[in-house]
Amino acid sequence: MAALIAETTGASAERIRATCYACLLSSRSITAMHSLDILTTRHSTPSRLLNAPAPDAAQLQALLEAAVRVPDHGQLVPFRLLLLRDAPRITFGERIAEIHQRSDPAAPEKALQKDRDRFNQAPLVIVVIARLTAGHKVPEQEQLLSAGCVAYNILLGAHALGFGAQWLTGWAAYDADVATLLGLAVNEKAIGFVHIGTAQETAADRARPTLASICGEWNPAINPHAN
Amino acid sequence: MAALIAETTGASAERIRATCYACLLSSRSITAMHSLDILTTRHSTPSRLLNAPAPDAAQLQALLEAAVRVPDHGQLVPFRLLLLRDAPRITFGERIAEIHQRSDPAAPEKALQKDRDRFNQAPLVIVVIARLTAGHKVPEQEQLLSAGCVAYNILLGAHALGFGAQWLTGWAAYDADVATLLGLAVNEKAIGFVHIGTAQETAADRARPTLASICGEWNPAINPHAN
Repeated sequence: MAALIAETTGASAERIRATCYACLLSSRSITAMHSLDILTTRHSTPSRLLNAPAPDAAQLQALLEAAVRVPDHGQLVPFRLLLLRDAPRITFGERIAEIHQRSDPAAPEKALQKDRDRFNQAPLVIVVIARLTAGHKVPEQEQLLSAGCVAYNILLGAHALGFGAQWLTGWAAYDADVATLLGLAVNEKAIGFVHIGTAQETAADRARPTLASICGEWNPAINPHAN
Repeated sequence: MAALIAETTGASAERIRATCYACLLSSRSITAMHSLDILTTRHSTPSRLLNAPAPDAAQLQALLEAAVRVPDHGQLVPFRLLLLRDAPRITFGERIAEIHQRSDPAAPEKALQKDRDRFNQAPLVIVVIARLTAGHKVPEQEQLLSAGCVAYNILLGAHALGFGAQWLTGWAAYDADVATLLGLAVNEKAIGFVHIGTAQETAADRARPTLASICGEWNPAINPHAN
């Protein structure tokens, strides 16, 4: 069939076979073959390798609409997002460095510059904020994990759209003054700064755990004394 | 172009336009269009609607290999998986009910049957276990979130392969006797039971948060007094 399409369209049969073969199968196969790819091919791109362009307005909207679709026990929406880009993003890095310097007046200039540089590279940084409701029947741990899924979804969505991304934390994610700078409420915490941009080179993947080392089958003999 | 292909292959032009149009674009477009789909079309299927068959051996291996590819600061691999299936899965439900009855001898039979039924439905349940290293430079919160990404990846991968899934917790996820039954170490906790099977009907999606309600742009005016 690839040859037939090539004949009709003038495209290279080899190229069509490579890119379209799966799409000539059933729609379920399309989904299956393409969709695991997003999980198996995604890996972090260090933020220093992320340049402009960022996703455009339409891509960003599609990405964020996809990203907020997460498991959310009780539908508490225990998350919100803040976008850092353009001039404010540079200002944010400067403020981070100032907070660092105030808390440690002896901090070397190199460390302060690292704080600034962290927000100088990728053209878009999405701050993922967990909004936790204490004392709710849905434990805070589950609320936190829901917010974590949003951060991870942003990585996946960025990858799906052809962008590189990295989920970073660092001291700033845990600092009370930075929380104030971000305007966080007392029940909120920044769980990650997700940096997004166009990868200027392909970063190597890292080793991944083998299933044999972390996956087993439960059976009653695991704990023979439970009853 | 769909019309041209239809002419050549005899297939319905409408059908080809629906299933293949994206694939006639560049390979980047294929990835982009198909891959966000996995995020935008996934939603939970209640475990009572999940029947056999479960993923077969090859599908399960592909699913799990994809699922353990998560952000993991420090590469601590802060998670492991236990599969519940076949006869042991039924036994597990019975043990859960027995634990419930021991802790509350007045528990109504209906509640105990609910415990059993929870593990009678989906043909496969994957227990996602967080393995937390205390005192590490990578905060335990980040380790927990990494494990949460594995649970979420299982949902995504199951969906990609055409299966339904639901991430459940319930009292059993937080019970010390159940932790013993699962053979958990003191630094481990079950963060979810991910039920997987073939959806016997299509569950409706639920309302999702609007971006306008949870997404904003950071600017220095958010906190004018930070400096």
